[in-house]
Amino acid sequence: MLRELPLNQVKMTGKFWDNYVELIKNATIPFQYKVLNDDVDDIEYLRDRKSHALENMRIAAGLSQGEHHGMSFQDSDVYKWLDAVGCSLQVKPDKELQETADKVVDLIAAAQQADGYIDTYFQLKEPRLKYRMMYLGHELYCMGHLLEACVEYYKATGNQKVLEIARKVVDQVDSKFGYEEGKIHGSDGHPVIELGLLKYYELTGDEKALRMCEFHIDIRGKDPDFYNKEMQRNIEDNLPIDMVDVADKTEYLCAYTQPKNQREVKGHAVRMLYLCAGMARLAYHNHDKEVYEACLALWDNVANKKMYITGGVGSTGIGEAFTGNYDLPNESMYCETCASIALVFFAYDMFKIDPKEEYLEVIERCLYNGILAGASLDGVHFFYVNPMEIHADMIAGNKNLYWIKHIRPNWYSCACCPPNFARTIGSMNRYIYTPDAENNTVYAGLFVESETTALDGKLSIKQETAFPYENTVKFIVKGTGTVKIRVPFWAKDVKVNGEALCCNCVKDGYYTVTVNDEEKVADFTFETPVMAVKANPMVTADANRIAVQKGPFVYCAESVDNEKTLTDFRLTVDDVKNATMEVADCELGTVPFLTINAKVEKGCTKRLYHYNPETEYETAQLKLIPYYAWANRGAKDMMVWFHQL
Amino acid sequence: MLRELPLNQVKMTGKFWDNYVELIKNATIPFQYKVLNDDVDDIEYLRDRKSHALENMRIAAGLSQGEHHGMSFQDSDVYKWLDAVGCSLQVKPDKELQETADKVVDLIAAAQQADGYIDTYFQLKEPRLKYRMMYLGHELYCMGHLLEACVEYYKATGNQKVLEIARKVVDQVDSKFGYEEGKIHGSDGHPVIELGLLKYYELTGDEKALRMCEFHIDIRGKDPDFYNKEMQRNIEDNLPIDMVDVADKTEYLCAYTQPKNQREVKGHAVRMLYLCAGMARLAYHNHDKEVYEACLALWDNVANKKMYITGGVGSTGIGEAFTGNYDLPNESMYCETCASIALVFFAYDMFKIDPKEEYLEVIERCLYNGILAGASLDGVHFFYVNPMEIHADMIAGNKNLYWIKHIRPNWYSCACCPPNFARTIGSMNRYIYTPDAENNTVYAGLFVESETTALDGKLSIKQETAFPYENTVKFIVKGTGTVKIRVPFWAKDVKVNGEALCCNCVKDGYYTVTVNDEEKVADFTFETPVMAVKANPMVTADANRIAVQKGPFVYCAESVDNEKTLTDFRLTVDDVKNATMEVADCELGTVPFLTINAKVEKGCTKRLYHYNPETEYETAQLKLIPYYAWANRGAKDMMVWFHQL
Repeated sequence: MLRELPLNQVKMTGKFWDNYVELIKNATIPFQYKVLNDDVDDIEYLRDRKSHALENMRIAAGLSQGEHHGMSFQDSDVYKWLDAVGCSLQVKPDKELQETADKVVDLIAAAQQADGYIDTYFQLKEPRLKYRMMYLGHELYCMGHLLEACVEYYKATGNQKVLEIARKVVDQVDSKFGYEEGKIHGSDGHPVIELGLLKYYELTGDEKALRMCEFHIDIRGKDPDFYNKEMQRNIEDNLPIDMVDVADKTEYLCAYTQPKNQREVKGHAVRMLYLCAGMARLAYHNHDKEVYEACLALWDNVANKKMYITGGVGSTGIGEAFTGNYDLPNESMYCETCASIALVFFAYDMFKIDPKEEYLEVIERCLYNGILAGASLDGVHFFYVNPMEIHADMIAGNKNLYWIKHIRPNWYSCACCPPNFARTIGSMNRYIYTPDAENNTVYAGLFVESETTALDGKLSIKQETAFPYENTVKFIVKGTGTVKIRVPFWAKDVKVNGEALCCNCVKDGYYTVTVNDEEKVADFTFETPVMAVKANPMVTADANRIAVQKGPFVYCAESVDNEKTLTDFRLTVDDVKNATMEVADCELGTVPFLTINAKVEKGCTKRLYHYNPETEYETAQLKLIPYYAWANRGAKDMMVWFHQL
Repeated sequence: MLRELPLNQVKMTGKFWDNYVELIKNATIPFQYKVLNDDVDDIEYLRDRKSHALENMRIAAGLSQGEHHGMSFQDSDVYKWLDAVGCSLQVKPDKELQETADKVVDLIAAAQQADGYIDTYFQLKEPRLKYRMMYLGHELYCMGHLLEACVEYYKATGNQKVLEIARKVVDQVDSKFGYEEGKIHGSDGHPVIELGLLKYYELTGDEKALRMCEFHIDIRGKDPDFYNKEMQRNIEDNLPIDMVDVADKTEYLCAYTQPKNQREVKGHAVRMLYLCAGMARLAYHNHDKEVYEACLALWDNVANKKMYITGGVGSTGIGEAFTGNYDLPNESMYCETCASIALVFFAYDMFKIDPKEEYLEVIERCLYNGILAGASLDGVHFFYVNPMEIHADMIAGNKNLYWIKHIRPNWYSCACCPPNFARTIGSMNRYIYTPDAENNTVYAGLFVESETTALDGKLSIKQETAFPYENTVKFIVKGTGTVKIRVPFWAKDVKVNGEALCCNCVKDGYYTVTVNDEEKVADFTFETPVMAVKANPMVTADANRIAVQKGPFVYCAESVDNEKTLTDFRLTVDDVKNATMEVADCELGTVPFLTINAKVEKGCTKRLYHYNPETEYETAQLKLIPYYAWANRGAKDMMVWFHQL
């Protein structure tokens, strides 16, 4: 049985990832606090330019006067911020930040009702609708995120009040939802309560929370008409109904059938993948075979048929949703940052059940690409939608693409992604080492300069590396036990202690080091050649196109680096393989630029259509940067999938 | 000054186009009458499966009981059908059809109010809102189509009642709209009244109608807030407001500024192009320089930056609208059949002002491709939206593309396109010959087997040809005058009477034949080689793609003809040039199939992404059919723009 290590047990050093964790602590978290506290003035994407999230809490707590403001799930912005703080404090204690966050905890506690209920939207705006519009109310979504936040913040600080908040939430949810008569026989339209309950269970061992999670995953979709009936009842009772249009969208709500019977990821991508993560985590604990079988099918579907090369998921903005198999349009997709985050959660929970290398590969793909692109390099601007190709001038005129931006705003009216980015990247050390105590084994999933002690102190592992800036990773393994080191598919010519890796040395993607009261060194050197990527031919959007990857990084080209129009470039697989790299310290930080000697198709520029033109090419250099760094310099065009020659 | 010839003065024979006119007379018009009269049961796309359009008239006339049913512009379906009948009867008299249509005229007359007002939606459903929701009411749109229909039907039959209906409509509109105090200082959200008024003016010489058209084109957008104020007034007066969401969309309504100040085609494509046609036709009559200048700019914009290779226009279904310059996505476009029809109207009105060959080229492009594809080969199924590429399985799952169909339904709840197809293709002989009396010249714009007598009987022209099935066209010109024969750009190795055309023989796209009380023969022979088409590099959607055209026909490939997946094919310009043709008599009629010896990229089919794959190609034959014939055999995939090797 694999288990997550406490965050503070994995010490991360080194330049790339730890820089991000520092950035989140020093820039993102303080900025987001200011937003939540209405101390930032220039927020373009908020009505009235304020979040009001903490003010909603103050009003609910009776500490301030006024009306609720913002989305029905505005509270969750506070909770995900608190979650991010909890993660940050576990790895980088900070007294001042803790004091700020303690006050937020006090405020949440003050806003929480005596019976444990907390949702300022319903408390302040629509008390008559409490638990009566599960199809869109997001109450359990908010409480789920609150539970997650409480757990992380408690781990970081031991704050008893936060544990008490969580206990009361669990009791409240337990008192209202369940199979018993008089309780609600349905779950929230937006999953996440599942994960919240399981994290609470893992922290406290309270079996009740586990049973509650089982209920919420079982009841979902049991009566596919649940949400519709609920809405009809509200109409009959003359209650105010917002946003009726989604009420019958059971697929959007991932409730067209019970989760255990679902085999294809459908509907709203974040809802679907939070649900998947909850299902996998439940199966991890209760070994439910039906749920696990569904998880396997859903995993196969998302990872092998519906995932962009960056780890982005969700192919349309309409319903922020999955579409059909292999339907991966590059310009009109959604690829919400939260969806890639949820995919990482799902992957890691699957990995803990069955430590296949493929799960780590997806985690790595999302972390280095899809999720990291969710924030600017200053840590205070965020994408909600992460496109694969953008032509800013065309987007301006095409309402089909209204959800696409080429510049990151500093906040959103629906602000799920910014704090989600903070808590996820701020705790990415979670994914480096995973112990399997029964087998005296620790899985080392990512090349990151770091160290840990696991297996009850019996085994310590240290990675000395400047990766991704250099291609050597020295594993120092001490004590007793086994380390299974993941050897990524993009690492070529791998040598360990100077010797080429033989085929038999790597089994199922792992290189094994076993120590018995001793110290061993496994000094990895490898190449990360630039690779040309082709999509499965079923992906019509990528037909005759080539993407570029080097190491874990997917690359893209931006118009600011290229004089020629990006769509004019033509590449071959060999052109890509022969790319040259230059690491530059520039406004993007330390970034490896790639240059590909490509061709540009010469075209006449006057007529709209040309007949029997001579196809002429000239050599031209295509300059690329890692995808995560795009949209930091005002580029108007960007491409990931280039035209093939 | 160029003038349209009466339809009955151009006798069309031959296989291709006359077959269509026959089909419209024998299949389309009778079927559409049944639909309008609720005599067809299996109409999937109508609520309650009935049109009710004639029944609405009967109710308004007091001949039947019941409520109005259908769109606010349901009446226009009847009018466009009557227009189609009028056109058909001019070229192919038919007593029985005329009797049916006379009764429809009687019904319209009975439904029309004494004051000339007619709009059954407002008469029956919302009399309080008459002329009070111009932003969406479509009253003048309906009356504009009614005027057009009256004119064509009168020309065909001399029916006095239909002329009287028109006269009353003109008086009604005149009494309500104008600069005078007490009249409405605005026009309809959906143009077409302009064309209706001008056609009435052309028929009757009634200058009042010309002045009214001037008013409607001048007043539009003069106060861009007109529609919004109108809606606000309705809200204040507690009147029922439908579809408020478009009220402030002045761009959608082509009213963000006065038409004479517009320089880019924007907003709803059909509205925009009906407006353009009205403007050009007005400028033709009143020589308004400002309006004409706007027309020139709008023409340049649509023809050179926003038109698909098929003559399709409108790049998004959201608002059925134009998007930015060079934004021509192949899968998510709209290309409404009506929009290409409106483009033909615009082009022809521009042509009559200044007989440039480019206008005829666009007319031809639309007729042979974009418009013709609007109906099935049986004449009783219709596309509203005409895509350039379709992958039916993906569309099924992608809500981004909800407006795309790969099978033509037999009707629509918004049924503008089916009767518009009937009246336009049913009168396509309109575009073959256009006399310019002042210059004793007739322009022969299209190669179609036909004959006419023009210039007050002084000049007769006959085309003997089996085109498009054979590449010879014999012009027999008799009498006194000049014929300017358009030599299309796709006709190569042109010989006239056995002699190669010299450069000087063709001026501005025309070959000139002058006769002086004599007969001359100009016997054209030419080749129509298969041509590879490349789009302007600014069209990112077509980068690295090739389309195929032969003669006036754009070609496409359908999955029913090709075992290999269409997106797997790779073509070069030379592959296309070397295509072979085989004319087959098959379920599609007499259709020239093309076969291209192309390559297919071999791809592995398991993994979603492949790294450094060998790019391997094998030879494969790509089979194509003319675009107009697609979607007649249940194909699931279709492509116009193929991937370039």
